[in-house]
Amino acid sequence: MALIVQKFGGSSVADAARVANVANIVTDTYKAGNSVIVVVSAQGDTTDDLIAKAKEINPNASKREMDMLLCAGEQISVALLAMAIQKLGYPVVSLLGWQAGFKTNSTYGSARIKKIDTERLSAEVDKRNIVIVAGFQGVNKYQDVTTLGRGGSDTSAVAIAAALKADKCQIYTDVDGVYTADPRKVKNAKKMSEISYDEMLELATLGAQVLNNRSVEMAKKYNVELEVLSSLTRVPGTIVKEVTTMEKMLIRGVAKDTDVARISILKVPNNPGIAFKIFDLLAKKKINVDIILQSVGRDQTKDITFTVAKDSGDAVVEILSNSGILTPEQIVCDTNVAKVSVVGAGMETHPGTAATMFEALYDNNINIQMISTSEIKLSVLIDIVDADRAVSAVHEAFFSAE
Amino acid sequence: MALIVQKFGGSSVADAARVANVANIVTDTYKAGNSVIVVVSAQGDTTDDLIAKAKEINPNASKREMDMLLCAGEQISVALLAMAIQKLGYPVVSLLGWQAGFKTNSTYGSARIKKIDTERLSAEVDKRNIVIVAGFQGVNKYQDVTTLGRGGSDTSAVAIAAALKADKCQIYTDVDGVYTADPRKVKNAKKMSEISYDEMLELATLGAQVLNNRSVEMAKKYNVELEVLSSLTRVPGTIVKEVTTMEKMLIRGVAKDTDVARISILKVPNNPGIAFKIFDLLAKKKINVDIILQSVGRDQTKDITFTVAKDSGDAVVEILSNSGILTPEQIVCDTNVAKVSVVGAGMETHPGTAATMFEALYDNNINIQMISTSEIKLSVLIDIVDADRAVSAVHEAFFSAE
Repeated sequence: MALIVQKFGGSSVADAARVANVANIVTDTYKAGNSVIVVVSAQGDTTDDLIAKAKEINPNASKREMDMLLCAGEQISVALLAMAIQKLGYPVVSLLGWQAGFKTNSTYGSARIKKIDTERLSAEVDKRNIVIVAGFQGVNKYQDVTTLGRGGSDTSAVAIAAALKADKCQIYTDVDGVYTADPRKVKNAKKMSEISYDEMLELATLGAQVLNNRSVEMAKKYNVELEVLSSLTRVPGTIVKEVTTMEKMLIRGVAKDTDVARISILKVPNNPGIAFKIFDLLAKKKINVDIILQSVGRDQTKDITFTVAKDSGDAVVEILSNSGILTPEQIVCDTNVAKVSVVGAGMETHPGTAATMFEALYDNNINIQMISTSEIKLSVLIDIVDADRAVSAVHEAFFSAE
Repeated sequence: MALIVQKFGGSSVADAARVANVANIVTDTYKAGNSVIVVVSAQGDTTDDLIAKAKEINPNASKREMDMLLCAGEQISVALLAMAIQKLGYPVVSLLGWQAGFKTNSTYGSARIKKIDTERLSAEVDKRNIVIVAGFQGVNKYQDVTTLGRGGSDTSAVAIAAALKADKCQIYTDVDGVYTADPRKVKNAKKMSEISYDEMLELATLGAQVLNNRSVEMAKKYNVELEVLSSLTRVPGTIVKEVTTMEKMLIRGVAKDTDVARISILKVPNNPGIAFKIFDLLAKKKINVDIILQSVGRDQTKDITFTVAKDSGDAVVEILSNSGILTPEQIVCDTNVAKVSVVGAGMETHPGTAATMFEALYDNNINIQMISTSEIKLSVLIDIVDADRAVSAVHEAFFSAE
């Protein structure tokens, strides 16, 4: 008898019909002889609606009270799913984060799981109950409720799978697996049957939006086998695990990220310490810098260009303008950019990847503004209007021959 | 420094403006140097909306899961009220039932409070925090959440006041006190400055709908001074306490209850055991019977008439029809009835009360179907179309002379 953890996102439980559909998936898994623990997010727009209510009352409410508010969303969905499963005649019990033993630190709004006290979970599984757990939430040492931040329900599911050594953790979403590119945009995009944790991490970071990064990191750390699949179709999804058997495949996928702003700092005096000062200032404000490019100095000055998340753009301009080391005229922020990346563990041993990618972009008249590489990914920054065309072209270059 | 418990119902926190209004009342009380614990219900229609969601998914969901669902309503309102108080710049913390130490039995849907572990509540009060507690909810010995049933938030507030020996428990509602009759219907209705627990209990039972009965019983048991007042006007309300100083007043109020069905059982054989059998059947189904009237037997048969809550009417007919001791033709259910009552501790020593009431009804051509009395109340059952006219007439008879 296997123990399977299943996670369903907000769109999978958005209304009564969807909840009934999830109840069918869960009970089918249970009927097949498995123990099942289910993690659910808040229904559809519930979280956004609650945030809007809070903003109307106090836009600067404490994070503790925001967490208190938002936890209600998952509470509603676990109860409703349990009711739908009762209707099908199966034994079921819903649990909130604190009841399921989720102990977190006290960083309200983006708490980290410290441990899961599995006593209650195990007891309910031993009673042969289907267990429905509220995702995204836990409790800190003061017995106050906390939330895990964006994508927290994925993390909740993986954490349970890790703590109880589950045989599999299935993440149900509105796509039926991980594709070589966004299937809504690229017509030849192919679903992968397997992908490694590291490749998945790069794809997640790069905006593929299939799985939350923290959950993949945790799955890798505790060696939890993940499956990404759709709650709307009953077809096998994509397995995420340590070693992929498809070693030959050069690249895994092409991803687009439009959540990027490019900051250019012009005519910086060619002193050694200046780049350090700039990035130290940003680090202190907790602004993550991604690609960095520095032009070769010509006339005793150099240009420094880097990318940040789009919504940090204004803050960066303000911080640097007020730094005393740059004038406002030296700082340019461009948000009309996109990052297109190819990811694949095979890339390391295939030097031709960059050439194939650049050729595809050149053939389509797409100008490359910046380039960044890691062992398993290659990213280019381009104009945002070219982004979808770039993804299709690059995808075509790598996958059409197969 | 006094400790004051304040309870606000769902209509008092129905929207952002109402929440802000409550925040003002609470912080004014705190500013005056008091410690304040606030109990809140779910916003406006939240509970009804959640019940509708549940019914759509499973009309026969377990009470445990219903409680899990409904508790989310108060969770939302405590967080929102805390945010509104933060906006005014006061220290505040919201607590759910389990965090506030509400230990209940396991009767989901109508749990009884067994005790309140006051450690957390006291600690927050000692820190000079305004404490916002989710009403209506607690936790049982299995660490599952429970709800206290209808009017549960009143009970939560009184229980906290009793456990912490608060100086006062203020119940804020949409009326500004307890009146001698419904002020929307009876134009000379007068607000009372004081009323005794027993009188309040009779008025609550009789449909005055100002305060929940259980909360008044608990207040009487632990001698908690209650005040009923409005969250929309800043005027003193009605104090409910053990001994009222206004001994001279004959009756306290006139109340109407239209939640009544009258069941008549015709031509019952005149055997001793038959009434017992009927009421034993109903008791086993947990149906409360109120007024009972038995006609004197004429032709070897008698008629038995009694009243039950309106929504129990159909069930009673079904139970008795299937009892094997009566035929369906013998059972008549009439839901077009109302109970009008006068309540007052002075009644015991003033034999004229019944005469005054009956005369007022007679003068207005209102037919009395049944009569019921206790030490401090006198109720008549009449046709529902006469109810408002009856209340006005009876109120006029007792209060106009003053």
